[in-house]
Amino acid sequence: MRLLRTGEKEGKAFLEALKRRGDIDARRVETEVGAILEAVRQRGDLALVDYCRRFDGWECKPEQLQVPMEEVEKACQRVSVELVNALQVAADRIRRFHQRQLENSWFVSEEQGVFLGQKVTPLEQVGLYVPGGKAAYPSTVLMTAIPAQVAGVSESVLCCPAPGGEISPVVLAAARIAGVKRIFRVGGAQAIAALAYGTRTIPRVDKIVGPGNLYVAVAKKMVYGEVGIDSVAGPSEVLVVADESASPAAVAADLLAQAEHDEMALPLLITLSPDLGEKVRVEVERQLAGLSRQAVARRAWETRGAILVAATREEAVALVNEIAPEHLELAVTRAEDLLGVIRNAGAIFLGHWTPEALGDYAAGPNHVLPTGGTARFASPLGVYDFLKRSSILRYSAEALGTISGIVRQLAQAEGLEAHGRALEIRERGNSSASGIGGTAAMEDAP
Amino acid sequence: MRLLRTGEKEGKAFLEALKRRGDIDARRVETEVGAILEAVRQRGDLALVDYCRRFDGWECKPEQLQVPMEEVEKACQRVSVELVNALQVAADRIRRFHQRQLENSWFVSEEQGVFLGQKVTPLEQVGLYVPGGKAAYPSTVLMTAIPAQVAGVSESVLCCPAPGGEISPVVLAAARIAGVKRIFRVGGAQAIAALAYGTRTIPRVDKIVGPGNLYVAVAKKMVYGEVGIDSVAGPSEVLVVADESASPAAVAADLLAQAEHDEMALPLLITLSPDLGEKVRVEVERQLAGLSRQAVARRAWETRGAILVAATREEAVALVNEIAPEHLELAVTRAEDLLGVIRNAGAIFLGHWTPEALGDYAAGPNHVLPTGGTARFASPLGVYDFLKRSSILRYSAEALGTISGIVRQLAQAEGLEAHGRALEIRERGNSSASGIGGTAAMEDAP
Repeated sequence: MRLLRTGEKEGKAFLEALKRRGDIDARRVETEVGAILEAVRQRGDLALVDYCRRFDGWECKPEQLQVPMEEVEKACQRVSVELVNALQVAADRIRRFHQRQLENSWFVSEEQGVFLGQKVTPLEQVGLYVPGGKAAYPSTVLMTAIPAQVAGVSESVLCCPAPGGEISPVVLAAARIAGVKRIFRVGGAQAIAALAYGTRTIPRVDKIVGPGNLYVAVAKKMVYGEVGIDSVAGPSEVLVVADESASPAAVAADLLAQAEHDEMALPLLITLSPDLGEKVRVEVERQLAGLSRQAVARRAWETRGAILVAATREEAVALVNEIAPEHLELAVTRAEDLLGVIRNAGAIFLGHWTPEALGDYAAGPNHVLPTGGTARFASPLGVYDFLKRSSILRYSAEALGTISGIVRQLAQAEGLEAHGRALEIRERGNSSASGIGGTAAMEDAP
Repeated sequence: MRLLRTGEKEGKAFLEALKRRGDIDARRVETEVGAILEAVRQRGDLALVDYCRRFDGWECKPEQLQVPMEEVEKACQRVSVELVNALQVAADRIRRFHQRQLENSWFVSEEQGVFLGQKVTPLEQVGLYVPGGKAAYPSTVLMTAIPAQVAGVSESVLCCPAPGGEISPVVLAAARIAGVKRIFRVGGAQAIAALAYGTRTIPRVDKIVGPGNLYVAVAKKMVYGEVGIDSVAGPSEVLVVADESASPAAVAADLLAQAEHDEMALPLLITLSPDLGEKVRVEVERQLAGLSRQAVARRAWETRGAILVAATREEAVALVNEIAPEHLELAVTRAEDLLGVIRNAGAIFLGHWTPEALGDYAAGPNHVLPTGGTARFASPLGVYDFLKRSSILRYSAEALGTISGIVRQLAQAEGLEAHGRALEIRERGNSSASGIGGTAAMEDAP
């Protein structure tokens, strides 16, 4: 952890390095991931079975890759009523928020029978990747499956690593609550390959969404283009902006909630008050002592964390936009007043009573957010990730005649003669009944 | 060119191969592109100058990479008044269509002072890649620059290859009409690298959009994640669905307008009528003879083109959705009736009077469209590509108290103790005035 003044040399160097934090170190695993992708493409389920043995210590047959419905039912019975209820409440809130993201097809009709617009269509089949192995993430099941369902996706297929062939019951319960019917015990780059190319057991999907480790991120990037992906996700991040109205204990708790995710997690604080900065530092140390995930949180905090003391409010805002954090907490009075000047952040938590942990689980907005500074150009996972648009164009003979000269002029400027011809042939068909073959049939049907 | 029945063995094999057409053959150029990216990242402008010499036969200094405004003005005077007018008409129509794509920030306010929503913000800086070299594409300048401008992007930067240091005057005129102020004489993978990493002369942007050759496509894929990209574009495609109401001459002209782009262009026809298929085949041969770009068009048509005869309307529709073409022409009577069952297509051209060439230039919708089957999950370039969303969350102390138990339950299920602590600390601060340090200050400001 560094306590840095942003105007000083060390502070500047730290901020400069942050700009490049999104560069995933793909090279290290690229060859290995490439080999996994190729193996699954060539050998399908047999390759998956091999990887289950190797990575998950699980001997299985292809037909065991999918979790049978009875097993899902049985698992749900092993989850406490309270926890099922909590998942249900979270699911309802997530669904309610995401329903606001639905989009309509739209059109404009102009003179001369011109009709233009965009048709919005849900994707047909999507793959949800839910990390697992060391821990269980039922919340990620809800956050990926519900937007897909709200969008109207025909089928969502879920892949999750399963050490020893076991997926956590609470993950299965979340899948059931979110209406996911096909669940596969496959994780890592091999799951991404299966979803991208399809195997006999796992269907080829149109888009893969969800976070994962470095192997998953690199695999997603490599298959992108053959299949859609939501993002190439890196370690999780929080940037807390706090003034003296903030509780040092609450700020410290939020920094640690970030730090406990992962040794590479990035917990940052910006404040104008060196005094608050110091109090938070002390509080972090105090709270660290009692944490069950102390080792992970301490490592993230010590190697990646920072408390940055800025000189002015304007500087603090500029830093936020430059860092473009995944999570931004504005633990300041009148946090809303800052909204207009914040350009880059995945999710913005306003005031003292909106901890990031709330957004991770149950507030409603998505917790799959742009990391590594990609909030400069990317958005939270949403219903829009599961919809796509097709442009719709319809001209009449008359309208085409009006614009035809313009089009031919432009086609000529680009040296594309056949483009011009496509117009000319129709102009002739339009103006003469004795035109080219077939034009008699070219009158518009109603 | 193959005239195939979709039910027969050869037809099936052809369609199966089409599914994989989006696999770009990256491996062939990956090493070379990787070296270019690395050179530009390390050596900046000096690397760009080297590549200008090597690829464009142009000796220059870094300060010459940007086209000076006077040169843009001068170039515009060399473009005919008619052509400038055509560009202006097209620009106006493109702008008008894209203005419909603007999105608003939105929010919901709930009980207990909960405020949730999404803030929509334009990207700050974007890079427009416009191909060049062999030909000039002023239409691509309009199609990329105008949506960015409508979105409210602060600055658009344009890169275009410039053999001998020359960019076509009509491209410069289009840039001026579209309001692009910074234009660089840099193309290829080196342009993508410059826009992704920034050099002394070319700014690092938030997102790169626009089509290009294989080098550009592979470079975009490689930098994706450090910078946003619109897509990894492959060769252009058209699928015409025609019935006997169609003019064989018009259909043939549209297939050739596609074929003349590129030897790898994909011109396809699906019809239920073998008779129409045969007539189109004859017409294509006849029209090919007189084309200036005959060699290119013939090669695309002969090696990539196909006339597919389907057995039923349902089968034809299923094929369209499976192929997911970039451009889909429905040259049939009552084309609108098919809209409801078409799921996958970049742009849909309805009826006999809406040739693709019209959409390429002046109808209004974008001509940068998903290729290679990516219309399964991707959309036309649009204003939405230049906007991103940030989730907004605000809870009150009271609302947080209501949901806190749910969040703690879920955090516990995921083994994330510090997440639970972030809630507990606030609950304590909430219920007790003598709570943890700083909580006295945690009352909400208005």
